[in-house]
Amino acid sequence: MRKLLVIGIGTGNPEHMTVQAINALNRADVVLIPRKGEAKDDLAEVRRQICARFITDARTRIVEFDLPVRDQSGEYRQGVDDWHHAIAETYADLLATHTAEDGAAAFLVWGDPSLYDSTLRIIERLERAAPFDLAIEVVPGITSIQQLCASHRIPLNRIGDPVVITTGRRLRDGFPVGADTAVVMLDGECSFRHLDVADFRIYWGAYLGTADELLIEGLLSDVADEIVARREQARAAHGWIMDTYILRRMAG
Amino acid sequence: MRKLLVIGIGTGNPEHMTVQAINALNRADVVLIPRKGEAKDDLAEVRRQICARFITDARTRIVEFDLPVRDQSGEYRQGVDDWHHAIAETYADLLATHTAEDGAAAFLVWGDPSLYDSTLRIIERLERAAPFDLAIEVVPGITSIQQLCASHRIPLNRIGDPVVITTGRRLRDGFPVGADTAVVMLDGECSFRHLDVADFRIYWGAYLGTADELLIEGLLSDVADEIVARREQARAAHGWIMDTYILRRMAG
Repeated sequence: MRKLLVIGIGTGNPEHMTVQAINALNRADVVLIPRKGEAKDDLAEVRRQICARFITDARTRIVEFDLPVRDQSGEYRQGVDDWHHAIAETYADLLATHTAEDGAAAFLVWGDPSLYDSTLRIIERLERAAPFDLAIEVVPGITSIQQLCASHRIPLNRIGDPVVITTGRRLRDGFPVGADTAVVMLDGECSFRHLDVADFRIYWGAYLGTADELLIEGLLSDVADEIVARREQARAAHGWIMDTYILRRMAG
Repeated sequence: MRKLLVIGIGTGNPEHMTVQAINALNRADVVLIPRKGEAKDDLAEVRRQICARFITDARTRIVEFDLPVRDQSGEYRQGVDDWHHAIAETYADLLATHTAEDGAAAFLVWGDPSLYDSTLRIIERLERAAPFDLAIEVVPGITSIQQLCASHRIPLNRIGDPVVITTGRRLRDGFPVGADTAVVMLDGECSFRHLDVADFRIYWGAYLGTADELLIEGLLSDVADEIVARREQARAAHGWIMDTYILRRMAG
């Protein structure tokens, strides 16, 4: 049976690698690294650094591959569905080409495999469609949420209170009901501008865990414009940005 | 200035330690380990194992201390507030006794310091009250949520959908509004029994990350009783239990 190791590598800092992740990486015969186009080459670079630093077996092969591109013209969910189907086919080809019947391949997942990442979903398709059996092993990793809290040195939740993890898309429909703390991910549009800024405190971070980390914290009414400007500036300078933030409704 | 290292150690598996956490641990002059009474001695034992395995400097001291006990007789928030105040005083004494003015002390926090843990809140009090200056550094760690997802090999969120992290206490008031996925923590009472079991799938785990890990997954209507029974059995056998679960509302 082929083994697939789905390894969370943390978020930007190679030292987010856990001992478990390092050991899993070293059980792989081949590490499969997606290229995501020039703009995000920094991200592929972190994966390469992790391999260079932590793989101790000289026989481990690293195979870079091109991910299919998502068709963004149609309906969102259908577009994602077609895209995942195409990626599952790519994975099947890669495994057939690069692993023996009892071999092990590793995927390095940014952050944690469970959070806003589709590798597990795609592998589930692969399991249904592939002409070979697979054993899946998942290794957890540090998420950008945890690094954001660590960098700001704040707890995520208030005592005994709930937290909502959501997306920019959802936030534009309003702040989540029933919680005073929201983590917003996948937000390319600074969707916090759609809220009543007087009600919230924001803890924002970009390039979390890396040497380029940016942090801004304050009343949303004070810092919203600063975040928008800094974000645009940084995106232009780097060619890409990954950011996330926590919104906390103020007491009273 | 004294340095306080607040280090997330992950959840039960010593191999959840990140490279960053190991390095931080080795920058501490003293590691402060709370004893929580006999029942949870397993937890103190994981901390001891982590120190034994990962500390490379023989001069690093390990100091175990007794945590004040929370008065559970009155109102919840006031009880927690008084308790945190007492712990902050304990921390201040420990630092004054065991660290030099430019020394570094480490706290090892179960899971991640940001999630349902009060160390950061208590340190904030300490900063206000202590007769010395403190520099705080937070190192993120793997949470039980991530290990739960990894063990069940599932994504936490549905594509583009929000997730609510909440408590058993809150769940007893009803399933969170506006989300189809909830992570329930701090639930000593199997509060999922208060839901309409026909609507949900549950992914439950106890002693996550340890050799004693228990996992149950299925339709809530099928497995709710099994979880209640298994949980009670395990709690009796170990003398304590830490468990958490994900509830997913079924489509349709």
